[in-house]
Amino acid sequence: MPLTPEQQAEIDEQRANPRPTLRAVSEGMEKHLYLAHPVLDHGLIRVVDYMGDDAAITQAARVSYGRGTKSVSTDEGLIRYLMRHWHSTPFEMCEVKFHVKLPVFVARQWIRHRTANVNEYSARYSILDREFYIPAPEHLSAQSAVNRQGRGELLEGEEAARVLDLLREDAMRSYDHYESMLSQDGQKGLARELARMNLPANVYTQWYWKVDLHNLFHFLRLRADSHAQYEIRAYANAMCDIVRDWVPFAYAAFEDYRLGGVQLSGKGVEVLKRRLAGETVTEENSGMSKGEWREFEGLWG
Amino acid sequence: MPLTPEQQAEIDEQRANPRPTLRAVSEGMEKHLYLAHPVLDHGLIRVVDYMGDDAAITQAARVSYGRGTKSVSTDEGLIRYLMRHWHSTPFEMCEVKFHVKLPVFVARQWIRHRTANVNEYSARYSILDREFYIPAPEHLSAQSAVNRQGRGELLEGEEAARVLDLLREDAMRSYDHYESMLSQDGQKGLARELARMNLPANVYTQWYWKVDLHNLFHFLRLRADSHAQYEIRAYANAMCDIVRDWVPFAYAAFEDYRLGGVQLSGKGVEVLKRRLAGETVTEENSGMSKGEWREFEGLWG
Amino acid sequence: MPLTPEQQAEIDEQRANPRPTLRAVSEGMEKHLYLAHPVLDHGLIRVVDYMGDDAAITQAARVSYGRGTKSVSTDEGLIRYLMRHWHSTPFEMCEVKFHVKLPVFVARQWIRHRTANVNEYSARYSILDREFYIPAPEHLSAQSAVNRQGRGELLEGEEAARVLDLLREDAMRSYDHYESMLSQDGQKGLARELARMNLPANVYTQWYWKVDLHNLFHFLRLRADSHAQYEIRAYANAMCDIVRDWVPFAYAAFEDYRLGGVQLSGKGVEVLKRRLAGETVTEENSGMSKGEWREFEGLWG
Amino acid sequence: MPLTPEQQAEIDEQRANPRPTLRAVSEGMEKHLYLAHPVLDHGLIRVVDYMGDDAAITQAARVSYGRGTKSVSTDEGLIRYLMRHWHSTPFEMCEVKFHVKLPVFVARQWIRHRTANVNEYSARYSILDREFYIPAPEHLSAQSAVNRQGRGELLEGEEAARVLDLLREDAMRSYDHYESMLSQDGQKGLARELARMNLPANVYTQWYWKVDLHNLFHFLRLRADSHAQYEIRAYANAMCDIVRDWVPFAYAAFEDYRLGGVQLSGKGVEVLKRRLAGETVTEENSGMSKGEWREFEGLWG
Repeated sequence: MPLTPEQQAEIDEQRANPRPTLRAVSEGMEKHLYLAHPVLDHGLIRVVDYMGDDAAITQAARVSYGRGTKSVSTDEGLIRYLMRHWHSTPFEMCEVKFHVKLPVFVARQWIRHRTANVNEYSARYSILDREFYIPAPEHLSAQSAVNRQGRGELLEGEEAARVLDLLREDAMRSYDHYESMLSQDGQKGLARELARMNLPANVYTQWYWKVDLHNLFHFLRLRADSHAQYEIRAYANAMCDIVRDWVPFAYAAFEDYRLGGVQLSGKGVEVLKRRLAGETVTEENSGMSKGEWREFEGLWG
Repeated sequence: MPLTPEQQAEIDEQRANPRPTLRAVSEGMEKHLYLAHPVLDHGLIRVVDYMGDDAAITQAARVSYGRGTKSVSTDEGLIRYLMRHWHSTPFEMCEVKFHVKLPVFVARQWIRHRTANVNEYSARYSILDREFYIPAPEHLSAQSAVNRQGRGELLEGEEAARVLDLLREDAMRSYDHYESMLSQDGQKGLARELARMNLPANVYTQWYWKVDLHNLFHFLRLRADSHAQYEIRAYANAMCDIVRDWVPFAYAAFEDYRLGGVQLSGKGVEVLKRRLAGETVTEENSGMSKGEWREFEGLWG
Repeated sequence: MPLTPEQQAEIDEQRANPRPTLRAVSEGMEKHLYLAHPVLDHGLIRVVDYMGDDAAITQAARVSYGRGTKSVSTDEGLIRYLMRHWHSTPFEMCEVKFHVKLPVFVARQWIRHRTANVNEYSARYSILDREFYIPAPEHLSAQSAVNRQGRGELLEGEEAARVLDLLREDAMRSYDHYESMLSQDGQKGLARELARMNLPANVYTQWYWKVDLHNLFHFLRLRADSHAQYEIRAYANAMCDIVRDWVPFAYAAFEDYRLGGVQLSGKGVEVLKRRLAGETVTEENSGMSKGEWREFEGLWG
Repeated sequence: MPLTPEQQAEIDEQRANPRPTLRAVSEGMEKHLYLAHPVLDHGLIRVVDYMGDDAAITQAARVSYGRGTKSVSTDEGLIRYLMRHWHSTPFEMCEVKFHVKLPVFVARQWIRHRTANVNEYSARYSILDREFYIPAPEHLSAQSAVNRQGRGELLEGEEAARVLDLLREDAMRSYDHYESMLSQDGQKGLARELARMNLPANVYTQWYWKVDLHNLFHFLRLRADSHAQYEIRAYANAMCDIVRDWVPFAYAAFEDYRLGGVQLSGKGVEVLKRRLAGETVTEENSGMSKGEWREFEGLWG
């Protein structure tokens, strides 16, 4: 993700001029503001603005619970309590706005999270750049044999080379044709809103994406998960690092209760209780289906 | 709305310590931060945090429209263009968080706007204060004879006095009983979550309310409208004054295209065109219903 | 909840005339249509319309996953898989519309769930009925000593009688004054939108509430929970019975994975694994806070 | 859009078996159920389920406004009143579920409407079909010279032929390569979630899309508008025809007040009033910008 000199100069300028504010300030987040974190081969994510910090979460909770919150003495303890008991509204009191550059097929997954605000670069108005995502060799995987939506072992040798060649050549050719259809040199030139249909899903787009912390955590729980597609997980992981610096208490609670947490079914609770009582429970007498048992055993042995 | 000395001291402290930030800063909004604007007899509204300014709107639009926005040269012109053409997403890029103290019957109208984040003081956890909205004499109106959801002329003399006495006495008595049911002095004391049911809808509650600018404008269009109930309109008007200082270009466009704008039906367009062509159009040959015609005539004469 | 003869006649008529449809039909839900299920002393809940059934969930999933779903052979198995893996969108493909009559303080909790459609009886337009919620003696509880938002032991004897008298008398008096303020007999009569402010939060209101199945499950998980206030739980329980008849597979999966399920933190997983390995874990070496440990022990012993 | 014999048989079967229901039934909508309306070259839209009818809208309004609605005597009059005064919640009481097959670049515009439920065919799980949108010659337009996001005159002759050839050839080649990368014949075969990135934006996808009538009208107002891109407008127009049959009163009101309606700014109102009073208003003394005046004149002459 090489920034142009103009882009870097713009970022430098934005970072050069702090101004006084009476608002809550997160020192950890100020360090990130405007800086471009590279993701994938040409992608980036950067914080454009934010609202609130850990204290804003507890402040909102204390409005809700009034004198009732006095019993939890520290901000950290209160934040953990809120997360544990699914009190989501105080986390909605923080907001963040990202600038993201990402391949279209990642954007299509991402946009399924509806509780966010988005301004995407419009290929009806403007011309897309010649930038395409080509996987690094270590992410070029075969279809998983056991998981219909997962990846298996790495492609190697000639097969890997052939795939990379196809992806690169098709991207370049489609972009050449995009340009030649748009061209007004000696011809009328196809409308941009039509020409864009020729570009494959690994072309890069960009958008501003604004979301509150509760809904961001929901996004991260699903997209930083090991079952998420690698390409969107790369963005989620970059965001996790940023959020940790922004709201350290909230992020630590999220990490413990959500990312590192486990949802047990009623049947799962029962099996664990029987095991704790010394019983040997098998798939047959667990009451679980084959699939559930496999997942359960995967975690609990 | 008399602030306690503790509350005033807290506000003074919050306003005393500006800190440097790299984020967009709205000077007009910094002046409002934390200050309590009185509304009704005991209510208030104050800005607790905000994100973005006029430039944040055009910045987001320029991401969307890329080189396409170059033709609109100024921020003001672009903002007017966006508002005129219902391009709402750039306005969603600004966010504001208010602390509001308001009567419960106002809160019940307000909460119908779903696209916002709310943390309300909880009467399950905590005890409500003895504060009730009692209308000022100039807002104590009779039922409108023509509008089923509106107010007509002012109540006067004995009737007005009787109403105010009833409202005041019932409020005080209900609060006395609320306290006596809660009391653990010589008795167990009723649960707070039950005792609160005795309090009338003019009791004050408070909340943090966070919303993006597009949805705030939608709220203000409906609630700053002359048909809105006076009590919620008082809050909407106070917010209009704040938003004008926060994002002057956006507010001016909102004022022209939404607050001061008019929605014409297809039939209305046709009638106006016939009039402009010199024809005299009557209710009978307008194609409108009695109600539509009355409203149309009210505006166009 | 005594229905008026007119209301009962209307329900009987609605149930008397089945019409042919090509849509998915849930026999279990047809039995409930329009019937009023009593809740609390004057409340009710009834199904006014619905869309979809268990098969509609799997049908939507099969659009999403295409040939990928063939490996899960049965509808029931697929629904359990979707619920276990938080695939929420197929559950959004079912929709239900309820007519609910409920006290205002319950309505205020309920409305916090924003992803639903609501039409509430408007006390600006119309006059509310003289109906108030008065708790049955077995639900008249003291404030909990350990839980700031919970109930403790029952009130008894004189204290209980006194509370019930206060609630009843204040309700009746406030309604008498509501009527007398509204009256246009020898006076102008106060506007309805103002007079309503004198009514306490146990007055009954009513609304149409429409929601998709995913969001309904979210509501039920929180409101059918033992920590929810009894009065809203009574409605949630009534809805659970209805949903069980409507979409039996989905409801069974919800019951196992959500209602009967447990969320473990990363720390909780670790403690259980240590226990399963034979170790005795104490609060001190669990890494949990006092509050977390108390809740953890409450479940796992 | 040639349906396969299997698809046609499935539709025939679904339409062959009416079942009794006690719910509201819209005869106009029953005629559409399951039938595939062709859109573009390979796309389709069909109604899979619906909830409510015109009467459901007024029924909900009458819950809200209680006895207040008696003054509007007919369903049609009440529906027009609701639409005129932006009372949106009664329209939310109707719901519809569509099955749509559409090109990806259309899907990307469509999904920006967030208040709907979606289940899209997943190219992580399953393999996309070899179907691509190729514009008909009468929709193959040049970039507009005046509107940055619009189309101008038709391409003709060689230029048109060249564009169609490029679109067709690139689509076929990218699909050939998609298949060859996926193939497990003599090689491991690339993961589906990666291979899909080679497909251009005119490939067809499909989804179930469920939305309430209020939000559908909002969608249609924007997408059936003459400024919308032709390809999404084709779907919007097909939906308009369906909705007209489903809820004829609501659709007629929508057509008059929204589709055929006009939003005037405060300045626009003033100019029209001056004109009605006989004054000749020019761009210079209108107070409008160049762009506003051009649009204003375009409508009012």
